[in-house]
Formats: sequence, C-alpha cells, structure tokens
Amino acid sequence: MRIVLDALGSDNCPDPEVRAAVDAATEFNDEIILVGPERDLQRKLGSINGSAVKVQIVDAPDAITMEDKGIQLALKAKKRGARNSMAVGIDLVKNGQADAFVTAGNTGGALASAYYRLGLIQGLERPALTALFPVKDGHAVVLDIGANPDCKPEHLYQFAIMGSIYAQKVLSIQNPRLGLLSNGEETGKGNQLIRETSPLLEASSLNFIGNVEGKELFGGEVDVVVMDGFTGNILLKSSEAVAKLLVDTLREELMSTMRTKVGAALAKPSFTKIRKMLDPGEVGAAPLLGVDGLVFIGHGRSDAYALVSAIRVARQAVQADLLGAIRDAIERQLQLLPEIQEP
Amino acid sequence: MRIVLDALGSDNCPDPEVRAAVDAATEFNDEIILVGPERDLQRKLGSINGSAVKVQIVDAPDAITMEDKGIQLALKAKKRGARNSMAVGIDLVKNGQADAFVTAGNTGGALASAYYRLGLIQGLERPALTALFPVKDGHAVVLDIGANPDCKPEHLYQFAIMGSIYAQKVLSIQNPRLGLLSNGEETGKGNQLIRETSPLLEASSLNFIGNVEGKELFGGEVDVVVMDGFTGNILLKSSEAVAKLLVDTLREELMSTMRTKVGAALAKPSFTKIRKMLDPGEVGAAPLLGVDGLVFIGHGRSDAYALVSAIRVARQAVQADLLGAIRDAIERQLQLLPEIQEP
Repeated sequence: MRIVLDALGSDNCPDPEVRAAVDAATEFNDEIILVGPERDLQRKLGSINGSAVKVQIVDAPDAITMEDKGIQLALKAKKRGARNSMAVGIDLVKNGQADAFVTAGNTGGALASAYYRLGLIQGLERPALTALFPVKDGHAVVLDIGANPDCKPEHLYQFAIMGSIYAQKVLSIQNPRLGLLSNGEETGKGNQLIRETSPLLEASSLNFIGNVEGKELFGGEVDVVVMDGFTGNILLKSSEAVAKLLVDTLREELMSTMRTKVGAALAKPSFTKIRKMLDPGEVGAAPLLGVDGLVFIGHGRSDAYALVSAIRVARQAVQADLLGAIRDAIERQLQLLPEIQEP
Repeated sequence: MRIVLDALGSDNCPDPEVRAAVDAATEFNDEIILVGPERDLQRKLGSINGSAVKVQIVDAPDAITMEDKGIQLALKAKKRGARNSMAVGIDLVKNGQADAFVTAGNTGGALASAYYRLGLIQGLERPALTALFPVKDGHAVVLDIGANPDCKPEHLYQFAIMGSIYAQKVLSIQNPRLGLLSNGEETGKGNQLIRETSPLLEASSLNFIGNVEGKELFGGEVDVVVMDGFTGNILLKSSEAVAKLLVDTLREELMSTMRTKVGAALAKPSFTKIRKMLDPGEVGAAPLLGVDGLVFIGHGRSDAYALVSAIRVARQAVQADLLGAIRDAIERQLQLLPEIQEP
C-alpha cells in the first residue's frame, strides 16, 4: 500500500510532514510518498536519518497555499500538468501509482484539485466535505461541512449513503445510526430541503433514526449526520467558536487569583480530556467523499503525530476498500431509485 | 406602565411567576398583571403577602402547554375568546390594557398566539424569534432562531432592521454592528439566500459589517446577526449542546479523583462566570419581533429572578418605544425600497 502525503500542507510544513512520513513508514512498514520540492525534502529527510525507511519523494516545486482563492485556485487545481503538490499527489492516485492522498493544506484547494483531477464516482452528483465531530464518548461523521452551500434532497441522500459507509468501513460501526440535522425532531419540521429529504431517507435501507438536533449529535446518540454544506459549515465553525469562548473564559478566570491558580494546577488532569476532545489532530483527517479516489484532509495545525493519525485513517480506508463500497452503493442506489438518475 | 406576566409559563409555574410579580411590582413600583387561574393565584399571592403591592390578577383558566403542537396549538392560539393565559394576556396588550406581554412558556405557542392575535406590523412580512447569545464580553442579538425555516432576502433584510433597532433602543448600543451569518466572510460566499441578501444590506443605511462566521459572533465582534430560522435554530441548539458537552465532561473529570475535587473546590469562583454565561435566566427574555405589540419570551427554566429580569427588559422596550421605532423604520424602508412592497 502506498499513501501520498502532501509535504506542503500544514501550517508549519514541511517539517511535520517529513517527520510524519518517516514515522508512518516505520510504524506501518509500508511506503509513504512525500510530494513537494525534491531537493529540500531530500535534505530534511537525510537530516533525520529518514533515508533508511521506505519514504519516496516525488518532486512538486509549487504549492497551493491558504492565500489561493476563487478563480486563481480553480486554475491551479485544474491545470493539466500542474506542478503544485496537491496536483502531483492526486495525479499519483489517479494513475494508480498510489492508493490515497493525505494533505493538511487548503481545504478548498484539496476539494477543487480532487474534483477536477479525479472526477466524481459514477452516478454521484456532488462531493462532500466530511468532519469527525467530537461528541459524548466518541465521534460522529458529519457531512457536508462546506462543499455545497445549496443542496437538493438527492444530494443529502447520497451524502447519507457515503457517510454511513464511511462509518461502517472505516470507523467499524456495524449499523451506523443516521440522522438528518433539523430544527426539531418531529417529522414535518424543517425547511423545504429537510421536508423533502426525510421521506427519501425513510424509504431507504439506511439506518435512519430521523431528524436530529444538536443535543442528539453532541450527545452521541447518532453516528452520521447529514446536512447541506452551508448549514454544516456554520455548525462546524460555530461549535468551534463556542468551545473556544468557553475554554478562553475559563482559562482567564482560573488565572485571575492565586487561589484559583492553585485549584487549576491541582485539577490539571481534568482538562486533558477536554483538550483532547477539542484537538483536531486527534482524529487525524476526514475524507473528501464522492470523488473517484481516496483523499483525506487534515487540520492545518496538524503536527507529525496528527499527520501519522491521518495516514492511519487513510490506510484503514484503503484496507476496507471504502471507494469500492461507495461505488457499489451508489450504483445500487441508482438501480433502486431510478428517478434520481435524471441529470 | 403595565406589564402582563403569563402565570402559566415556566416549567415550575405558577410559583416563580407569583413571586416575580410581587418582586417586580415592588422593585419598579408599577403594576404587574398576572394572567392565570384566578382563585389559585389569589391564594398564592395572599400566602406571600402579595396583596400589598400592585399585582392585578386577570383570570385565565386554561393554558397552552409544552405538549401543545401543530394544529391543536394553532387552534388554541387563534380562537377568538380563548381562555388560555397566553390568549388572555396578549389580548390585554392588543386592547391597550397593557403595554407588554411576558411569558416563559411554549415558544411556538407564544409565537402563534402573538401572530394571530396581534398581527404583524404594517409592511412587515414575517415575525422573528430573537435570542440574546452570550458572547465574549457581552451579548449579541441573533434572529431568526426558528419562526421561519425558509426565508427570502427581504425577510432577512427586515430582521436586520428590527434587530438593529432592538440593539439600539433596548440594549443601548448606539450604532450596532450588523452581520449576516455565512459560511465564510468573503462577499460571494454563502448559499443563494446569502448572496442575494448581502447586496440589500450593503445598500441599506444599517451598520452592515459584512458576512460573519461563528468566530465573529462568539468573539463579540458583532452586535446583531441575522439568518433564516432554520439556520438560527440549529445555531442556537448546537451551541447549547456543545456547551453542555464541555461542561458535563469537565464536571465529570473534576469529580473523578480526590486531587481534582480539591482543585475544583479551590477554583470554584472561576466557574461562576461560565455558569452565568450559560444561564438563560441571566438575559431574562428575548423579544418576538415583528408582531404588532410587545411580546417577550423567557426560558422555560426561568425562576423568579429570571422573570423579574424579563419584566425589566420588557419595561425598557416600552420606555424606549421599541414598537414605534420599528413601525417607523419599516415604513421608511418601504418608501426607500418600493420593490419590497410587492406582496
């Protein structure tokens, strides 16, 4: 198995990537392909004795950065023969020279590059950005968190299929509970999109438990939650902002007097679980579902540890043949629901 | 000034309401009208020596409860001569016998009752449920949090006007910063609704600072944030659920060993600010904006202290002539933007 790691992804790249490639190649005893500026990577690899392990470098002198946006980004992502690390890395997957691509870089860039270079799985209408949300006693698969601001019911239906398969194949949840995020749990609640999507999910063979709200999601009562990319993006960013507000406020208060400082020092082990819960590196990476190849996107703040976790997740997806399972399910879905085949 | 308090609102009604009526009448030296079962209220009032203060009781033998939903709720809310406490209380406002109605009861019930009994302000298309979100160093006015799952740009524009006036008149923020909740701050981001609403807000005389995300909202960088009721409801409930998850997790961890228990005891004062931040009673009540009368909805968990805060907020709105200011603004808006007058 060969996993490609974008050496120009994380905020502190390429050092965490070089370290992660060496660590992952050692841990998994399998080949890791680093894409990025060859000479630079070679030198850094040599300096940490990385030449001994199975790390291959494929040259990519350019990068898609956090500053790339809009048309400029689309051009970089689309251009045939582009030499940026995402293009080169994803082309390796496309050409069968690698099994999965992992990056901690620009999410929009990874989405656009994967979409243009790999195309979509046959029969699929939209790709979905996926996140693993920390919830009570575990994680929930949440999609779409931003690829499609406007969605149709069929899109959400396909997200539900992909998310459920991901939970099954990669997170090993046998019969993942699926929920549709809505403003109220009763059938009939929701906006037009929700009211049109619920019946599709109810009629499906998915384990649809109904419309859910924040309390079911964060309470760990559901494994996969689907929504349009506008709602999902707001959900993601607001949740992060609320957590930050609470943690910052508490930290400030704890540091305000000597007595509370002492209390905080004694209580320190209690904060570990919260910190882990809120650390995006803990989940490693989330898949970009729907494109015809395995692509995983980690957080920009990923360190080597988080990148190794990301590679581990990508390996699990390869081993479980995630892509094949989604391809099959979408094909079966098209046979079952011919009305969805319309363009 | 006369404020009507729904005696059958809060989860523990009517005791907190009776206590709040007495406390508010004493604090403000003004009349409070309690609506609910007359004999019962009279007895409870007598038992806490409430007869000495200006608390009037208006009989309402029935109630709209948390169990009332759908058509049943609509009928209770709509029926002419209905004897439930919301209907009776709101009719007092409609008939000019009171200046504002305050309830800690069923939000949907209050919305429906106010909508059917008071009607909308002339020229206004939709009422909006409003919430005061705890944010860094204060609160933000957020609307709509659930009255309108599907919205048009003109609705969001009117929410922006009403929210800005509320922030100005009741929260005394001179030139409230207005934001439009979106998935990304750049103009051009957003779903179709957002892309069509931004230009309306940009062309307005409101202090529109642009599209905002969770970090601006919870970071206290904006005073009023507008959105459709589906998105707003999900934002509200998810934020509450994230906060609950973090607080519950921390509490559990703090109680897990003797050492952390001691730390927690020492650090106790630090948790006060967080607790206050998350206590819905602290803000008292939020207005139902757009109906042709002043209606305030408090949290179901309100105690007497929270209900007095709610009455205080309602009084501020009466004193500032919130309703007149919104009426004027909507009228001016119709003159300025004739295309919005179309039915």
